[in-house]
Amino acid sequence: MTDTKSIRRITVVGTGVIGASWTALFLARGLQVVATDVAPNAEAALRKFVDTAWPALKRLGLSPGASQSSLKFTASLPEALAGADLVQENGPERIDFKQKFYRQLDELLPAETIIASSSSGLTMSEIQLGAVSHPERCVIAHPFNPPHLIPLVEIVGGAKTSEETIRRASDFYASIGQRPVRLNKEMPGHVANRLQAALGREVYYLVAEGVISAADVDTALCWGPGLRWGIMGNMMLNHLGGGRGGIEHFFQQFTGPMTAWWKTLGSPVLTPELQNKLIESVHAEVGSRSIEELEAERDELLLQLIELRNRAPKTSTARQAVAGAA
Amino acid sequence: MTDTKSIRRITVVGTGVIGASWTALFLARGLQVVATDVAPNAEAALRKFVDTAWPALKRLGLSPGASQSSLKFTASLPEALAGADLVQENGPERIDFKQKFYRQLDELLPAETIIASSSSGLTMSEIQLGAVSHPERCVIAHPFNPPHLIPLVEIVGGAKTSEETIRRASDFYASIGQRPVRLNKEMPGHVANRLQAALGREVYYLVAEGVISAADVDTALCWGPGLRWGIMGNMMLNHLGGGRGGIEHFFQQFTGPMTAWWKTLGSPVLTPELQNKLIESVHAEVGSRSIEELEAERDELLLQLIELRNRAPKTSTARQAVAGAA
Repeated sequence: MTDTKSIRRITVVGTGVIGASWTALFLARGLQVVATDVAPNAEAALRKFVDTAWPALKRLGLSPGASQSSLKFTASLPEALAGADLVQENGPERIDFKQKFYRQLDELLPAETIIASSSSGLTMSEIQLGAVSHPERCVIAHPFNPPHLIPLVEIVGGAKTSEETIRRASDFYASIGQRPVRLNKEMPGHVANRLQAALGREVYYLVAEGVISAADVDTALCWGPGLRWGIMGNMMLNHLGGGRGGIEHFFQQFTGPMTAWWKTLGSPVLTPELQNKLIESVHAEVGSRSIEELEAERDELLLQLIELRNRAPKTSTARQAVAGAA
Repeated sequence: MTDTKSIRRITVVGTGVIGASWTALFLARGLQVVATDVAPNAEAALRKFVDTAWPALKRLGLSPGASQSSLKFTASLPEALAGADLVQENGPERIDFKQKFYRQLDELLPAETIIASSSSGLTMSEIQLGAVSHPERCVIAHPFNPPHLIPLVEIVGGAKTSEETIRRASDFYASIGQRPVRLNKEMPGHVANRLQAALGREVYYLVAEGVISAADVDTALCWGPGLRWGIMGNMMLNHLGGGRGGIEHFFQQFTGPMTAWWKTLGSPVLTPELQNKLIESVHAEVGSRSIEELEAERDELLLQLIELRNRAPKTSTARQAVAGAA
């Protein structure tokens, strides 16, 4: 863990929604942040985002030395990169742009500086082709939006990424309280987006087929299995679902019905007509409630759930995850 | 809602895990319960279950008049059914048994008594063929285990079930604080089990392919999207995922990537070899932690999350669900 402690100065490249949220998180963890973005008005928008996020970060607990004044902004890339221990890159999701940009980063940064990409749609094997000299220090560190509230970070290397980079990056995110997970292979959508896509597909299918309304399928999820997924993962829940016999008994008992259900799961096609049906059903659920009102409700509950989870005794998956990363 | 209030006396038929949990819930809501089961020692096991569940039910709030002493047990079916306003049936999941049994229930009960089945694997259209005289009062009311903690109840009628039965059953479960959802069509696994199956399939696939360990995929779920599914459903989260543009903008932005991910989702076959791989990965995650310890952790967090959700302002999906059912 020694070299994790030396990661004190982060450069955030690209301060859109994801970059701004990373910035708020890093500041709350007492790190020095230099942010850069070419968009006009980027600095003002970033400082506003951080200021708005700060009360929530305060509730979750600021690290010693955490301060909004540790944020510097510059439109100059070389200036932004000077002295960086880790670069969190949140640039546009176009492979031609990324490869050119990684060539620049690679030239400007010393070999030991980690370049971590928030990319959700590209693979590091492709991106790092641009980083001619030191592709081994490039890694995907994909957050789950918004990273200043949601701890998950998906770590996955490309063909040329070194094990040391993966370990140092994992240690770093764990050291600031995030929950890094390791992907051993590059997958479209990484892991969390795939899980969302798998669940969403069946949700859309059931509403599309007229089996259930959006309001009722939401109730079924968030007052049913979703309650458990807010506290433990699928595999551990299966282990407990097997009773005294654990995961072995779970498979003995449920392989039959599960396999039968899999055969009947839907594969909807999101035609404009189906989208309209889903949109109408969501509006019936939403009624007169504004997006702002619903967002505030979601974020307040999310904060409370994270506080609750953080208070839980450290026998949990949490401990395992940190131990696994350390 | 008037006739909901008249449902005061419940007969629980079959007091295995599900029946016992229903019994505890009904007692906590101040209802009179008569339970029946042919298994030797059923009464002692049931009373022990209720007693063990009681502290959690107390924390969530007992209704006026709630008392364990409102539980009567008899091995005689006709005695158990006498005076019932609603029968919660939790018998074996075999269609021949269920049809014969519904013939008996139908003969012994007055026409207005609702027969609600906890069946997860059979359809009411098949089951109610046994209830020759009054099939219209038979309905599926499928809980999410354990019903004394998890509020979801899936309501679905068979071909001969009346709208009035569906409405009365929904009103009843809503009146005792559960979250009934309405299925307009019979589906294998109803809804919640299908959502679990859809998610689980991709989880197993990713572990099977060596993309990620059980520990890490659990972290990815319960510190990532699972946090949100513990507080809101997929459709509402999509609506908020679209920003100011709501669900319309969500589909504009994400139909492309989602559809691409769907094409790459896995279809694992749960061979003995794959089961062993999954089992090993779960044991690596569990380490030395006992099932009892993990269960206690799950249940404590679950209680806290439900308390948190119950305290939330009633602008939530919750209110909508109750309003929808009323």
